[in-house]
Amino acid sequence: MASNLIASATVLSFLLLLMGVSAATPTGAPTSHHHHHNRRHRSPCKTLAFYFHDILYNGHNSKNATAAIVAAPAWAANTTTLSNRDHFGNVVVFDDPITIDNNLRSTPVGRAQGFYLYDRKDVFTAWLGFSFVFNSTEHKGSINFAGADPLMNKTRDISVIGGTGDFFMTRGVATLTTDALEGDVYFRLHADIRLYECW
Amino acid sequence: MASNLIASATVLSFLLLLMGVSAATPTGAPTSHHHHHNRRHRSPCKTLAFYFHDILYNGHNSKNATAAIVAAPAWAANTTTLSNRDHFGNVVVFDDPITIDNNLRSTPVGRAQGFYLYDRKDVFTAWLGFSFVFNSTEHKGSINFAGADPLMNKTRDISVIGGTGDFFMTRGVATLTTDALEGDVYFRLHADIRLYECW
Amino acid sequence: MASNLIASATVLSFLLLLMGVSAATPTGAPTSHHHHHNRRHRSPCKTLAFYFHDILYNGHNSKNATAAIVAAPAWAANTTTLSNRDHFGNVVVFDDPITIDNNLRSTPVGRAQGFYLYDRKDVFTAWLGFSFVFNSTEHKGSINFAGADPLMNKTRDISVIGGTGDFFMTRGVATLTTDALEGDVYFRLHADIRLYECW
Repeated sequence: MASNLIASATVLSFLLLLMGVSAATPTGAPTSHHHHHNRRHRSPCKTLAFYFHDILYNGHNSKNATAAIVAAPAWAANTTTLSNRDHFGNVVVFDDPITIDNNLRSTPVGRAQGFYLYDRKDVFTAWLGFSFVFNSTEHKGSINFAGADPLMNKTRDISVIGGTGDFFMTRGVATLTTDALEGDVYFRLHADIRLYECW
Repeated sequence: MASNLIASATVLSFLLLLMGVSAATPTGAPTSHHHHHNRRHRSPCKTLAFYFHDILYNGHNSKNATAAIVAAPAWAANTTTLSNRDHFGNVVVFDDPITIDNNLRSTPVGRAQGFYLYDRKDVFTAWLGFSFVFNSTEHKGSINFAGADPLMNKTRDISVIGGTGDFFMTRGVATLTTDALEGDVYFRLHADIRLYECW
Repeated sequence: MASNLIASATVLSFLLLLMGVSAATPTGAPTSHHHHHNRRHRSPCKTLAFYFHDILYNGHNSKNATAAIVAAPAWAANTTTLSNRDHFGNVVVFDDPITIDNNLRSTPVGRAQGFYLYDRKDVFTAWLGFSFVFNSTEHKGSINFAGADPLMNKTRDISVIGGTGDFFMTRGVATLTTDALEGDVYFRLHADIRLYECW
């Protein structure tokens, strides 16, 4: 009988192993699959990288401008020029072309649409809410972003908070880098997108 | 002994089956429950559908208006009328009644609160950040949304980025349809909400 | 043989128990780990609590102000004072110090950066999009928030929609409480953050 029990236990362990049952939680309590699994795995399920190009309206470039100041604090002179105190309070709406390479004149593969606002008086810092909108043979759907952009840092991370179409329900992190900056009129950001939840 | 082992294995398999142990990962390696599971399953855990009604302040309807332009680009004449160039840069804050049917005069079951902004110069396109706020016997809590709304499309998808109360921690997708549009003053959207993460 | 089967089954059950196999799904069908698990478990994987302090620019406090009105509806007199009708349509950009205790003069441990907007005409209600940004030995990274803030309620919940750095990919809920309110110039919020997805 004893040997049978041992044999049974051995078979059982072996079978469980074979079946890949992950007997992970020593307490026996049902636990979060999220947490256990995710703490260990930070390899993205999908990565994408793009540039997007922001040309701010300054009163003289209405044809080329892809962005416009739409709000400003009381101390700003107007909404044609960025306010002083590091543009604190300026809100900018944008519809920027997305390109694969860093050339503004390359054929756009999508649009970056939404807003950013400057939110610090002593250093340039922004907060972003926007989407990458794709409608090509390559990608259809949108990736939605939100987060703080301390733009004087070489790189900064924002959140991918959701997606639709090809990016249905996705979540992840995007690392932004300022690839070019020309005064108050033009900047180009590189977005290195790493998606960790793919459906 | 051999027959005992076989019997044990049979019992084991049967029990595992009974207990519904999902022996899903052939490698035995810890894997992403998210990805594995989710790629296969796109059936929502909860669906909801509502209408919401937006009456834009135009200088003459302060009693009925549920929304107001609060920001505009430099080229706009004022914030009482939507700007030209497809309203690019106009930001609108709203507190719209939510109804079950498409009748503006039906008793609201909640409020849609937040903002939208127009973000394209050559076609009407918006970006939305808002919540459905419920406080009834039916639903208590909020559903939070963000995403691009290319509103000339018959349907367009935005993200459900979170929720509270009855909608604690939810995520999903909402399909918006313009159900009515009356000039620049009134529109009614249908929101078909499909939640894929329910806690 | 019969006794061996029973013994095997007993051993099996015991072992499964020991190994903490969660035999959760009676149908045996692949199901949502999210849903099953999560409906039962609402214990956070991490909790944090902070105060943040908002001093609104009023034309006379440019040195101390941490926030400024940047947008207003057409009926507002200006952007130096909050508009009537419960500030409906006012958009405020902020960069508020975060402290551990409720003392405005305590050393900040981070910054709360983003915007809020007032979105109801008959009661004070706001909508928030912002980040907690940390760069200390204690915490590095950001927590991103969005949601409705019916600020006359004693407590109200908003969503944690993502995070970066130490808060990589996090999600959760934050309960806001107004800890102090001094006219239109100063308020202090307590944020009780409960994260339910930790990576």
